[in-house]
Amino acid sequence: MKLIASRQNAWFKRLRQAIRDHDAEIVIEGPKAVADAAAGRWHPLARIVREGSPAAADDVVFSAELFDAVAETKATQGVLGLFARPSFTTEALFARHDSVIVALDAVQDPGNVGTILRLAAAFDAAGVITLPGCADPYSPKSIRASAGAILTVPVAALSVPDLLQHARGAGFALYAADAAGSTSPPPPSRAVILLGSEGQGVSPALLSHAQALAIATSDRVESLNVATSAAILLHGSFARR
Amino acid sequence: MKLIASRQNAWFKRLRQAIRDHDAEIVIEGPKAVADAAAGRWHPLARIVREGSPAAADDVVFSAELFDAVAETKATQGVLGLFARPSFTTEALFARHDSVIVALDAVQDPGNVGTILRLAAAFDAAGVITLPGCADPYSPKSIRASAGAILTVPVAALSVPDLLQHARGAGFALYAADAAGSTSPPPPSRAVILLGSEGQGVSPALLSHAQALAIATSDRVESLNVATSAAILLHGSFARR
Repeated sequence: MKLIASRQNAWFKRLRQAIRDHDAEIVIEGPKAVADAAAGRWHPLARIVREGSPAAADDVVFSAELFDAVAETKATQGVLGLFARPSFTTEALFARHDSVIVALDAVQDPGNVGTILRLAAAFDAAGVITLPGCADPYSPKSIRASAGAILTVPVAALSVPDLLQHARGAGFALYAADAAGSTSPPPPSRAVILLGSEGQGVSPALLSHAQALAIATSDRVESLNVATSAAILLHGSFARR
Repeated sequence: MKLIASRQNAWFKRLRQAIRDHDAEIVIEGPKAVADAAAGRWHPLARIVREGSPAAADDVVFSAELFDAVAETKATQGVLGLFARPSFTTEALFARHDSVIVALDAVQDPGNVGTILRLAAAFDAAGVITLPGCADPYSPKSIRASAGAILTVPVAALSVPDLLQHARGAGFALYAADAAGSTSPPPPSRAVILLGSEGQGVSPALLSHAQALAIATSDRVESLNVATSAAILLHGSFARR
């Protein structure tokens, strides 16, 4: 265990880049989440510990100043994990025929994406597909909002044509959350539930391939938040399984 | 219309204080929300416009620098409204016997409080009661998350004994969102639905007076976010009316 205190250190640069870009390498915060990720399907690259926090022999120990320069101590409790970004095949998502897949069309707020990941786990969805324009589920803010669900929910980024082709091939029907749709109960299984950006909703190109599902509300609001819509539709789907 | 450019100006100080303290005076952002508030039950004190934005004769016009020192132009579109804080009697909330009241026990995140206000409007709740330890629904962050619902949802702050006394007096049953409760459908009317802080849940003192209501989930998560729980329970209640 060597104490690292230089901003020129390779681990420091790699960690900072992973937090900023969350591309090939992903950062997980907090000792419990880091242990859960390592115990699961995630491939660990390094465990980074803040000077003064309990550390194992092969941990990378950062000085307090260096650690605090990349992460907020309170959320991390002095522990960060650097992992290879997990990857899931689209086939794996469509392999489950006992549940639904959630697909997000240009949901830009990472907090909403993370909250929807948490709902996907809560209501046992097969996975989450992100379509173009969607915030990355592996951003620090989304991971935090997922409250650990990022570790268990399969995620895949797809183009619209690829989504349509996979759904057709696997015999999955498409449903889209849309205020103009029917308020019939959401499908229990073998379906993709599409959720669009607030303001815009699901794009017309996708809507034309989907059955529109509305959530009955009073006329006191114009719309629901996308995570709220996801909660109600996924709960309704789960209740019918 | 005199252009105000000094930080010593009384309107500037009053506005800054209202944004910070949201006590007797409340700030609403954006021309549409300001017009809606003035058209509704809210008592307008001043309309503040950023230099260069369309202004009426009795508007208070701030220099761009002064306006930007108190508010972010994008969210406000150059218009802020200063209003007297609305007040509602507890009796007014309990007067509606065709719906439910939402009560928040130490829900500390203003974004969650605002999201729950929006849900209260969407599912036509009679109002929202905030118990001690709860974030103020009139904070700028909560108002923003409410997406306009702050203008139409009656809100009252109550102590726990006062809530119990009012509920008893009006013949309202208490229900509490609690993972250990029954998954029977939420009550359609004449009930108070209690939601607690994430992590802590509804406090034991309140739970002992309430029927515990759970939301069925998979075992893939430990809990749901409080706004998510509110969405599912209020939607379920609305569906039975």
